[in-house]
Amino acid sequence: MKSNLFQFSISTRKSQEFMDITYLINEAIEKSDVQNGIAVVYCPHTTAGITINENGDPDVVRDILSTLNKVFPVQGDYRHFEGNSHAHIKSSYMGAEKTIIINENP
Amino acid sequence: MKSNLFQFSISTRKSQEFMDITYLINEAIEKSDVQNGIAVVYCPHTTAGITINENGDPDVVRDILSTLNKVFPVQGDYRHFEGNSHAHIKSSYMGAEKTIIINENP
Amino acid sequence: MKSNLFQFSISTRKSQEFMDITYLINEAIEKSDVQNGIAVVYCPHTTAGITINENGDPDVVRDILSTLNKVFPVQGDYRHFEGNSHAHIKSSYMGAEKTIIINENP
Repeated sequence: MKSNLFQFSISTRKSQEFMDITYLINEAIEKSDVQNGIAVVYCPHTTAGITINENGDPDVVRDILSTLNKVFPVQGDYRHFEGNSHAHIKSSYMGAEKTIIINENP
Repeated sequence: MKSNLFQFSISTRKSQEFMDITYLINEAIEKSDVQNGIAVVYCPHTTAGITINENGDPDVVRDILSTLNKVFPVQGDYRHFEGNSHAHIKSSYMGAEKTIIINENP
Repeated sequence: MKSNLFQFSISTRKSQEFMDITYLINEAIEKSDVQNGIAVVYCPHTTAGITINENGDPDVVRDILSTLNKVFPVQGDYRHFEGNSHAHIKSSYMGAEKTIIINENP
């Protein structure tokens, strides 16, 4: 079992959006040559999160963003001077690291 | 350190419920013969989540389900045609993968 | 690649608070002598969670605690006899395990 590290930079275009990073993870796993093991996907930005979902219908993404903004509203009784407390909360609750099983021979 | 993969299929009986899968994980760890390491538990269903909690009092399970349905209601301003957006949101926010420490000699 | 286990006990002083455990994790990683790999940080208390955030402005911590208490209120329609259902819910939704990438040579 060996260990590999790959870093990527991606840019968002909106204040809130989902970005599909599956292809980046697949590329990294291919380069790593790991057949069976795990991949730890981590985003160091503290106002971003990582989730695994099916991405079959864009309406799911819309529904998730819309609902999260009702539960953790952009404007609220926040004190943090940067005005992005809602994003810190969303990030902490979604989590910004996911551990993925690599299995080339299912 | 070696790597093992075990797959299980379980069926739910209700639209929303908690199922204790501790025994499945324990069985897999025993079969793996790993004494010290980690187990990555992952559910590929995008309307399910995995959590670690004590399962001492069934009322905790009832309280979690009940509260989540208040925060992320089954019926809402959703557009996803399958009508299960609330479950996708709950899943993304609880997470469907957990990494567990295996330590046979505490 | 080798495996290490370190255990720590810390005490909270309030019913709800954030405690920075970065130094404990750094100490464990140094002792482990792992240069490249992962650290799994886990808290077995089912009314606690672990999150990675920047801890730059104490107001972020205040905003997270305050918002979570609005979304998952301390007093509610709960049945669990111990009266801490809100904390079990917060824990299950934040998660009490995080997998961290160790990379001594970035």
